[in-house]
Amino acid sequence: MLALAASPLGLRTLVVDPVADSCAGQVTDLVTAEWGDAAALAEFAGRVDAVTFDFENVPAATAERLAAQVAVHPNPRALAVAQDRLSEKTLFRESGLNTPEFAAVDSRDDLAAAVERIGLPAILKTRRLGYDGKGQFRLKTPADIDAAWAALGEAGAKHGLILEAFVPFDRELSVLAVRGRDGEFRTWPLTRNWHVDGVLSLSLAPAPGTSDELEQAAVAQARAIAERLDYVGVFALELFVRNGELLGNEMAPRVHNSGHWTIEGAHTSQFENHVRAVLGLPLGDTGVRGASAMLNWIGELPDPAPVLATADGHWHDYGKEARPGRKVGHATICASDAGSLRAKLVEVGAGLGREEQVAPAIDVLG
Amino acid sequence: MLALAASPLGLRTLVVDPVADSCAGQVTDLVTAEWGDAAALAEFAGRVDAVTFDFENVPAATAERLAAQVAVHPNPRALAVAQDRLSEKTLFRESGLNTPEFAAVDSRDDLAAAVERIGLPAILKTRRLGYDGKGQFRLKTPADIDAAWAALGEAGAKHGLILEAFVPFDRELSVLAVRGRDGEFRTWPLTRNWHVDGVLSLSLAPAPGTSDELEQAAVAQARAIAERLDYVGVFALELFVRNGELLGNEMAPRVHNSGHWTIEGAHTSQFENHVRAVLGLPLGDTGVRGASAMLNWIGELPDPAPVLATADGHWHDYGKEARPGRKVGHATICASDAGSLRAKLVEVGAGLGREEQVAPAIDVLG
Repeated sequence: MLALAASPLGLRTLVVDPVADSCAGQVTDLVTAEWGDAAALAEFAGRVDAVTFDFENVPAATAERLAAQVAVHPNPRALAVAQDRLSEKTLFRESGLNTPEFAAVDSRDDLAAAVERIGLPAILKTRRLGYDGKGQFRLKTPADIDAAWAALGEAGAKHGLILEAFVPFDRELSVLAVRGRDGEFRTWPLTRNWHVDGVLSLSLAPAPGTSDELEQAAVAQARAIAERLDYVGVFALELFVRNGELLGNEMAPRVHNSGHWTIEGAHTSQFENHVRAVLGLPLGDTGVRGASAMLNWIGELPDPAPVLATADGHWHDYGKEARPGRKVGHATICASDAGSLRAKLVEVGAGLGREEQVAPAIDVLG
Repeated sequence: MLALAASPLGLRTLVVDPVADSCAGQVTDLVTAEWGDAAALAEFAGRVDAVTFDFENVPAATAERLAAQVAVHPNPRALAVAQDRLSEKTLFRESGLNTPEFAAVDSRDDLAAAVERIGLPAILKTRRLGYDGKGQFRLKTPADIDAAWAALGEAGAKHGLILEAFVPFDRELSVLAVRGRDGEFRTWPLTRNWHVDGVLSLSLAPAPGTSDELEQAAVAQARAIAERLDYVGVFALELFVRNGELLGNEMAPRVHNSGHWTIEGAHTSQFENHVRAVLGLPLGDTGVRGASAMLNWIGELPDPAPVLATADGHWHDYGKEARPGRKVGHATICASDAGSLRAKLVEVGAGLGREEQVAPAIDVLG
């Protein structure tokens, strides 16, 4: 989607991926190389004017090596911070954003002490390389400590672990933001998100029922974090809302699944603005065209017909093979207002046999 | 732009072009072959499920050869009719659409007789392979007959000629339409166009000041023509308006420059709907998001900054080398209403130093 957005701007893109059938290769040129392949990366860097990434688990060392040769945005330090749940949450607190209680865990004893301090329920997570609910273990009682350690102790020895208090939040929101090379900062309207089994299922923007105060506070947090990191490009700040208070969950240093609705729902998409930011072009208008809902397709694609037959319904097939748990596409339904979006979601949900997936949006739009 | 629209629908595209640096090759796979290369075309046809074209001068014989192997939409007969100004205008008249007076010209004597019958001023054109004002000669007095014959007689021996009365029209409009495999027919709102030196310079949609009666008549004509041709896909019907009456100018059997504004200005772009029609998918909503203006970049690109800095301003660089007369890109400026679009065009015209190019739109939006 980044390459598709770059093309009208007159850019040629070249993608590095360790996997030869990477879907970006369907729309642009592809270099197949491991992240640690210094020779291949040096050759790649010699062929491009600027580098970015849309996958946050690119090793920070790889980003640093590229940055010695060519402009890399966002900078490798921002990537390194966002890759580590401990430094990420520490940054949030330093920036004035509250977070669920957390503690670093390097041993079984650390874990027992952290459970004692934070209380239960809590979630043990790898500090690095976790996404979409992977690398996580939920502890409900102290008896779960052994099972948690058995599940993640080995990964923890490699990447470190963090115990986070489980927060019974009211809502999940994301701030989708972009910061230019000159420090210009813009946000799209807040997006409300619903996850199923740790994977994003549904997004709704602008997030209905959000007060101006909450929106302004969320935007101010995102801005403070971006400035501390001297961040350039698009990122998502994922937030919990509990009793009207914002809690920082995590930061995705890249274009984000909760911003896919911007392709059709906003005047400038997250993908185009990321490219503009990385290249130092003027940032585009982040205003919206109405109300939008994004439905994620996990594992396999449903029949596209009900979406294609919906006025202002848009289909995105990533050209990936079906596989359990894999994000293989999404649909965005746009409408002029919340009421009309609700009516479309009722119809498209029934057409797809996905009433359950659209239900939370119908509920809050009603 | 067709390939970029096809990708989110999950389609893989393969393009044939006689020119190896064809800009479609930047975003999809490319086969470089001459239109007459039967072996290369047969191999190409074996690799695809459906064929279409975005260049109306593909020889109809090539389309017919492909159609013997694989589905080709629009059908080769529709292509053949639209390629020949004489059969095109004959079709218009048979469908009930008036046209400027015209006569077939095969010799200098024919030309003299046609001038006698039609009167002057008139335009002598090749029946085939003309576009953007190429292959045309304007006659003002009978003394121009010799010069016209000297300029086009040789091309006429190959492709035939047609003399058309010069019509001092009030406005140029196009109907952008799409017809599905099942006969479903949709149009985008009428577009008003301005040409400079025979090349489209500016489009405005929805065309301001168009009466419902005129719009309905134009749409009915487009529909009648599409049905006669059993047309599948997007096409543009270019019309003159003179004293409130519609006159058929020409038909473009493809996605059309006057429909480029639909990428951002409509709920479904002409490119996506062409792909949907060709593949038998449901057609998308042709409603608009507001008012749009499209500025064509001929010869070379201006500085993109004023467009990128305009809210809801969109840049399209085709990745072509600059060359006099060549269409190398366009910009679309969108706004919620005509007044806001006018204000943006004043600013962007000044920023680009292209006040003259935007002036006609500012005039009619004022």
